[in-house]
Amino acid sequence: MNPASFLRKLLGGGQSAVERRTRELVGLCEALLAERGEYTSTALARDALAACQGLDERSREDFFDVLARHYSPSPEAVSRAAAEYQADPSPANFARLQETVEPPRQEIFRRLNMAPGGTATLVEMRSQLLKGMKAHAHWRVIDYDLMHLLRSWFNRGFLRLERIDWRTSAIVLEKLIQYEAVHAIQGWRDLRRRLESDRRCFAFFHPQLPDEPIIFIEVALSRGMSAQVQPLLDIRTQLADPANADCAMFYSITNCQEGLRGISFGNQLIKQVVEDLKDEFPHIKRFATLSPIPNFRRWLDSAPLEGDDAPLVARLADPAWHLGEVPEPLQTLLMRLCAYYLVRAKSGLEPLDPVARFHLGNGAVLERLNWMGDVSEQGMQRSAGLMVNYVYWLDELEKNHERYFRDHDVVASPAVERLARECSLADSQKT
Amino acid sequence: MNPASFLRKLLGGGQSAVERRTRELVGLCEALLAERGEYTSTALARDALAACQGLDERSREDFFDVLARHYSPSPEAVSRAAAEYQADPSPANFARLQETVEPPRQEIFRRLNMAPGGTATLVEMRSQLLKGMKAHAHWRVIDYDLMHLLRSWFNRGFLRLERIDWRTSAIVLEKLIQYEAVHAIQGWRDLRRRLESDRRCFAFFHPQLPDEPIIFIEVALSRGMSAQVQPLLDIRTQLADPANADCAMFYSITNCQEGLRGISFGNQLIKQVVEDLKDEFPHIKRFATLSPIPNFRRWLDSAPLEGDDAPLVARLADPAWHLGEVPEPLQTLLMRLCAYYLVRAKSGLEPLDPVARFHLGNGAVLERLNWMGDVSEQGMQRSAGLMVNYVYWLDELEKNHERYFRDHDVVASPAVERLARECSLADSQKT
Amino acid sequence: MNPASFLRKLLGGGQSAVERRTRELVGLCEALLAERGEYTSTALARDALAACQGLDERSREDFFDVLARHYSPSPEAVSRAAAEYQADPSPANFARLQETVEPPRQEIFRRLNMAPGGTATLVEMRSQLLKGMKAHAHWRVIDYDLMHLLRSWFNRGFLRLERIDWRTSAIVLEKLIQYEAVHAIQGWRDLRRRLESDRRCFAFFHPQLPDEPIIFIEVALSRGMSAQVQPLLDIRTQLADPANADCAMFYSITNCQEGLRGISFGNQLIKQVVEDLKDEFPHIKRFATLSPIPNFRRWLDSAPLEGDDAPLVARLADPAWHLGEVPEPLQTLLMRLCAYYLVRAKSGLEPLDPVARFHLGNGAVLERLNWMGDVSEQGMQRSAGLMVNYVYWLDELEKNHERYFRDHDVVASPAVERLARECSLADSQKT
Amino acid sequence: MNPASFLRKLLGGGQSAVERRTRELVGLCEALLAERGEYTSTALARDALAACQGLDERSREDFFDVLARHYSPSPEAVSRAAAEYQADPSPANFARLQETVEPPRQEIFRRLNMAPGGTATLVEMRSQLLKGMKAHAHWRVIDYDLMHLLRSWFNRGFLRLERIDWRTSAIVLEKLIQYEAVHAIQGWRDLRRRLESDRRCFAFFHPQLPDEPIIFIEVALSRGMSAQVQPLLDIRTQLADPANADCAMFYSITNCQEGLRGISFGNQLIKQVVEDLKDEFPHIKRFATLSPIPNFRRWLDSAPLEGDDAPLVARLADPAWHLGEVPEPLQTLLMRLCAYYLVRAKSGLEPLDPVARFHLGNGAVLERLNWMGDVSEQGMQRSAGLMVNYVYWLDELEKNHERYFRDHDVVASPAVERLARECSLADSQKT
Repeated sequence: MNPASFLRKLLGGGQSAVERRTRELVGLCEALLAERGEYTSTALARDALAACQGLDERSREDFFDVLARHYSPSPEAVSRAAAEYQADPSPANFARLQETVEPPRQEIFRRLNMAPGGTATLVEMRSQLLKGMKAHAHWRVIDYDLMHLLRSWFNRGFLRLERIDWRTSAIVLEKLIQYEAVHAIQGWRDLRRRLESDRRCFAFFHPQLPDEPIIFIEVALSRGMSAQVQPLLDIRTQLADPANADCAMFYSITNCQEGLRGISFGNQLIKQVVEDLKDEFPHIKRFATLSPIPNFRRWLDSAPLEGDDAPLVARLADPAWHLGEVPEPLQTLLMRLCAYYLVRAKSGLEPLDPVARFHLGNGAVLERLNWMGDVSEQGMQRSAGLMVNYVYWLDELEKNHERYFRDHDVVASPAVERLARECSLADSQKT
Repeated sequence: MNPASFLRKLLGGGQSAVERRTRELVGLCEALLAERGEYTSTALARDALAACQGLDERSREDFFDVLARHYSPSPEAVSRAAAEYQADPSPANFARLQETVEPPRQEIFRRLNMAPGGTATLVEMRSQLLKGMKAHAHWRVIDYDLMHLLRSWFNRGFLRLERIDWRTSAIVLEKLIQYEAVHAIQGWRDLRRRLESDRRCFAFFHPQLPDEPIIFIEVALSRGMSAQVQPLLDIRTQLADPANADCAMFYSITNCQEGLRGISFGNQLIKQVVEDLKDEFPHIKRFATLSPIPNFRRWLDSAPLEGDDAPLVARLADPAWHLGEVPEPLQTLLMRLCAYYLVRAKSGLEPLDPVARFHLGNGAVLERLNWMGDVSEQGMQRSAGLMVNYVYWLDELEKNHERYFRDHDVVASPAVERLARECSLADSQKT
Repeated sequence: MNPASFLRKLLGGGQSAVERRTRELVGLCEALLAERGEYTSTALARDALAACQGLDERSREDFFDVLARHYSPSPEAVSRAAAEYQADPSPANFARLQETVEPPRQEIFRRLNMAPGGTATLVEMRSQLLKGMKAHAHWRVIDYDLMHLLRSWFNRGFLRLERIDWRTSAIVLEKLIQYEAVHAIQGWRDLRRRLESDRRCFAFFHPQLPDEPIIFIEVALSRGMSAQVQPLLDIRTQLADPANADCAMFYSITNCQEGLRGISFGNQLIKQVVEDLKDEFPHIKRFATLSPIPNFRRWLDSAPLEGDDAPLVARLADPAWHLGEVPEPLQTLLMRLCAYYLVRAKSGLEPLDPVARFHLGNGAVLERLNWMGDVSEQGMQRSAGLMVNYVYWLDELEKNHERYFRDHDVVASPAVERLARECSLADSQKT
Repeated sequence: MNPASFLRKLLGGGQSAVERRTRELVGLCEALLAERGEYTSTALARDALAACQGLDERSREDFFDVLARHYSPSPEAVSRAAAEYQADPSPANFARLQETVEPPRQEIFRRLNMAPGGTATLVEMRSQLLKGMKAHAHWRVIDYDLMHLLRSWFNRGFLRLERIDWRTSAIVLEKLIQYEAVHAIQGWRDLRRRLESDRRCFAFFHPQLPDEPIIFIEVALSRGMSAQVQPLLDIRTQLADPANADCAMFYSITNCQEGLRGISFGNQLIKQVVEDLKDEFPHIKRFATLSPIPNFRRWLDSAPLEGDDAPLVARLADPAWHLGEVPEPLQTLLMRLCAYYLVRAKSGLEPLDPVARFHLGNGAVLERLNWMGDVSEQGMQRSAGLMVNYVYWLDELEKNHERYFRDHDVVASPAVERLARECSLADSQKT
């Protein structure tokens, strides 16, 4: 059934299960598609956008169902066009093939984008689509099209890097507070401290979403590589003089738009920020992260510990284990286990730890483990308080990135390597 | 032969006809494709862009040949994917089909776009491609991909309308002088007159091409609908008071980017400008063009004139025919023939005249013919000095547009209709 | 003693009571004065500015003493120049007189202003001067010069009106929270409510103090004239639709710069804001304030009440007098007394109430008294919970302003007039 | 006669010579003065401004006469206030004195400045005042007041330096063409060449005159110190690579506002530009001018030449003297005479040459004479084709400036010193 006849049925039947709102929206989408592209009325696009925004959950599901079922290319037509292309791979046949393969819903999305606020609405639509996709696997075809368009529209070439500071508008700053995903921002005073002169914050913006950061990163300028995150988050920490800094510490990076999930901006952001900071502070030599190890404890729970190790680790069951003095053997053991986890524990060919995968994939080096790096409740629960520094050496990023993806090498400092080797699990592995 | 093996041959053979520059560029494109999308190095993209810009004509042709021949999808793979989709139209099979059908060169273009200046270079590349496409029909497949991307990136939603005036930067103003395609701008003084307080000029801009107008339109605010273009172009014409104007005359509209040919911006621009002018000047009631009739004379040369008409029209052979007094019968005859040409002469179902096609397709009305509307050499040669006003009535655009495309109706004023009816060719048609 | 010899003594004597910092600063000021104006080194001005900013309280007092005592014109020289001017009022003699009369410290201030941040430092300096002027009456001569310059530099022509909303930078918004003097802003959430779509906020800015509001005003767009301030301040109050508003209520106006005390900006600000709001909302007919009556209670305490009035008013001693039901006679009495206070109570020829003086002087009309207009602790203490609306009728401002200053008329609405007449004090006055 | 009674006469008498326009303007000024400062109506100020702008030459002269004669302080009142100050130099008496001495026209100017466009009108008014001041010496008192205010309002602190390039708005660029006073700009192509990548252009702007440069300077980035100006002015001169430049040559500096004559901006501009260029091009070591010697030929005409010198110099009477080969003795003679002129010829204690006075006063060094530095007609006529380089060594500016003003030393390079010594006029001087 083609969309038009479908619509006829949709619009005609009073007994239809699909309710009025969805029908109206589908009607507007049909009207949009019926226009010649160049004459698309922005008034129509605006109406359709408004109808999208006005959907409740139920009617949105209906709308996605319609998009998935009735705006996909016909398998027969596709096969015919493919056969013709195979018989004669001429430009004309190729053009026909491409047209046949492209789902009409892509064109709907393109035309919705013509009205003011279109891009924002489509990003929001994808976020809602993703939420329901587990329960509605057939919506995946819609996601494929939205992804295709959004990836093209959010191409690095269209993003601009902006510094965020206390001169930034409140409408943007408020979003940082709301979006921050790594170390929650406790209101405006906390935010203000993170934007002082010994800090930097940068975000990517897209011309169509002027008040919406796409991704942002928080940086502390410090003397020496930071080992603990609490001093960075404490609003009472004294201001440092950036002129004395030799390290730029990336302590938080947050993707803001759920609707852009799967489009990766972090790698480009970090590289650009390193370049810009090098220009502003020629005396800063080291660009490093202070990163969490989110799944270390979970991995630890199922690690095949032997001998004295198991009872030592068992002490972590006590939520207060780290208060007071921690026995030296336990500290040594945890450090070695964590190094082993980061360097050797794999999921397929890649590290088990997602943060490690990200930074190592970017070409960074696993430089140092930090004991009691994050003593927040979350830090203790997830990683026994440990944190890790990854270092970005601009000259070696390309090479390390290659090694990582080609040879599946985890590039770590000698100190971390040694810790991983000293881990008892490493021995058991050899045998 | 897949691209990789092709490249090997390309890079390997000293006797290859393809020269060093092209080989280097293809090498860079291969390297770009080899990267994981999110890790694409902007340095690499920058190098590839620079290599594109550095191509001479010969090596550019070679490059286009490579893009057309070796970066198209394999017909066999396409047929296989199509068959699988036909057998089972699952999301996974559909995704595979789409991936198979998309030519790898699209991804090359997307990655080139990540470096600064990428969009501008791709627009320029398409302009060169179009130039050579007559002689190299097989490049059409490249054009298909560039068009696909550029149409997506230059979506109306990403364009912003800007007023151009004497406060605009010289770098943009200079481009108006250079690009103006309807009534050439004779230097800065001429331009300045066209930007005075009784005129308006608007352009669409794209965030990635900040100093490049995409399309621009020139408007004169006047009392009564302008019938002659020379007073509008004469820099000595006295300033009018916009407060007294009741018409906004669109007397020139120019598409600036050859590399965006085929992507239509005019319709959207005019509608937006009408909206904006209505806001600024609530007392302006009529939005009309003063338009050329570029092929009237050419059509006239082969029109089947009868009786006294032929010898009358033959007088136009004298370049000075319009100087001194023009016999009333000749004027009447030309006005009727021109009305007939605009209203009745067709190419398929659409008017023969390209400017008429554009404005009527937009939903405008053919309002009035103007005797001696353009007495410039070009105006006399192309249209015997005649010009035409098309009127944009906001409330009727949609309806007229519909009539035009559905019923192939040329919507003209009663006066123009009558002129067309009175034309002798109209009689002959009836018989 | 001329400044130079004074300085010599200052710089020479180790036993001098004036300490090093002041001496250094005076040395820098002398160096500044020694330069030819056009060659003034900004480096020197910068050093002098830094020295100003680095003064502690003690050394600042010394510095002011020096400025007052040693940088005033010599009485003898002034008399001589005046005599010469009287004998021959030629341009040359007049010029000499003006130069003689101008204190050298004015030139010091002008040169300090040449360095970045100069204006801000001078504004701050005046604020400190004012603080100490009670105890140091002889500093008044410095104030005269600073006022003269600041009044000239903060001329209305150099101020620009800016709308403040949630897009404004945090650095400015933070200052609103800090400066608000009428109804304190309780943090960012409160501020945000005051900047929503049914509110407006405007401020004057000066080019040299880009992040510092000079004065700002808060406006609520409402249907009908607001009578109570608590709903305007409550962050949970529902958003109104500005399209339905017919009143713009000015509910707070704050002068931000103590160092500009005595330079009046409020009148210009209100007039400009009324103009701008009329443009944005042609359907808004009434521009009115909701204003406090800061000294009503204090005046009441000493009012010569008679008969039953005194015991009624005495109830106000109970802080909870207004909770529960207020007896009708008390309400009537207070309304009449307050109307009398505003309309008849004078200090010299002008109203006793400072807020009334301001708005009536601007040409506004005393329109309405509002029972329980401000039930905050402060509102109860100062004005027994009463508030007042002053209305700005653009067409009558000039005339009312004239009446106010020429005839000392308090222009009040008939309702307020009647209340004042009904007050028992009015009777007693007649006898 | 006080202004009020004067006005009465002015307004009353039909036979008055002062015509309607002037009377109206004076009436508006009186009304402005009659208002309380803070309540000054911008409408009134706007009307008064418009009246200023609408004056023809005759009525403007009348207006200046009124301003000069009737808005000066009364000599008697001044003497009285001076006497009181002498008797008791209290702050109050001092304040009264200052108020008495300040002419009421200053307040008129301050209030005119409150309306939009006020500053521009006052700058224009002064320019007209200066034009007529030779013939009307008594206007000098008006000039004194305007200067006082303008100097205060155009304080360096309120100016901002802006780079001018091809991205600057046409409205500003057009003014450069119009104002350039040293080497005329021949239209837009010429201007464009002067703004290419091997050039820099900077201007001071004032917030109240956003489209009006106050002063601008043109700079060429070159390898080696430029000796001839024609290659810098030739639009066909090939672009140089700024990366190879080691000199920044200041080849033109123009004061734009006649109405600001006497307020010196050049010194501050050059120093700021040197600072900025040092930041942008750390490899540029020398900041020098290529300057004209405007009065060398005029001086030469009356120089007491002896022996063979006179007939040699007489050859300059032939306008073609420099075409073909110039005899070596003549070249030597002219170089020596010019060096003598610049180093030794004085007007009072300062150099006769005005350009020398400016740069030497700024602290620059007279570095080199350039034979045939300017072969334009004007260059030959004024300075026999000679030009001079002044060098700005940042570290020595202060010291040289001191030497120049204290010791009246012309700081010249050894080469120029030797040329001056070798001049025959130098010998005659010794005897």
